Amino acid sequence: MKRTITQIGIIYSPYAEKQDCPIQGAFAPESRGRVEVYPAFVKALATIDTFSHIILIYLFDRAGAVELSRPTFLDEEPHGVFASRHPCRPNGIGMSIVRLDSVQGCVLHVSEIDVLDRTPLIDIKPYVPKFDFRADASNGWTDNKDTVTKPPGRE
Amino acid sequence: MKRTITQIGIIYSPYAEKQDCPIQGAFAPESRGRVEVYPAFVKALATIDTFSHIILIYLFDRAGAVELSRPTFLDEEPHGVFASRHPCRPNGIGMSIVRLDSVQGCVLHVSEIDVLDRTPLIDIKPYVPKFDFRADASNGWTDNKDTVTKPPGRE
Repeated sequence: MKRTITQIGIIYSPYAEKQDCPIQGAFAPESRGRVEVYPAFVKALATIDTFSHIILIYLFDRAGAVELSRPTFLDEEPHGVFASRHPCRPNGIGMSIVRLDSVQGCVLHVSEIDVLDRTPLIDIKPYVPKFDFRADASNGWTDNKDTVTKPPGRE
Repeated sequence: MKRTITQIGIIYSPYAEKQDCPIQGAFAPESRGRVEVYPAFVKALATIDTFSHIILIYLFDRAGAVELSRPTFLDEEPHGVFASRHPCRPNGIGMSIVRLDSVQGCVLHVSEIDVLDRTPLIDIKPYVPKFDFRADASNGWTDNKDTVTKPPGRE
């Protein structure tokens, strides 16, 4: 099955270049951006302002070639891209949880953002702790990996 | 921007019909299924078995027409679909966190599943609490809504 996905808005951030972008928004509380949803979709935002956090689904539009297994920024070992958040993945879909600071019409002001400037938005979902928190979840291979420097040239 | 998304596997569950499907996997710990990733992508699963939970990204292939604002199963009020997890949404992309019970080659045995049988899979990401948990997040309009009965005919 194939489906054509169309952009529903644009994510703006301070990060024009990959090396400037935080590795995960959870570690970048001061990182601010805004999400502009196209006016045709404004009705889909109704009651979104009741949530403190939202999930942005977007396209990695500047990712390199897909490689199924490669190192991330957390260690030097290759990991399957379905076992990491690496952008160079089949279908190139990204997901970030951000704090929703305020809503003005079609514009969502957000923080904790780790997305490149002008990234194509394809969906927004509310972050709902009672659906999305798993108290007993492990961090898998990322456990105890705290490296947050980006080796030059690595995505 | 548009992108053509291609299926990377199939999600199997006990739920052939929408009315049988749990509303959220977090409330259905005994709900078991399996994810079959196409063999071409097996390398992308390397080290996924180190995680207790994964995030499935899939296509709502049997959803009705897109409506930007509509009631969910939690109350009778309309909510914008970007403020709910409703399947009838632009681009029709679904997201579920499931428990990863075991991995056998291209087959992932999972539980806590709330997806229809034979749903087209388009991505898998690891669920990583240190990235994905927001301790101070609100439940928004879903707070204190515990209705889990599905009104007949409503998606």
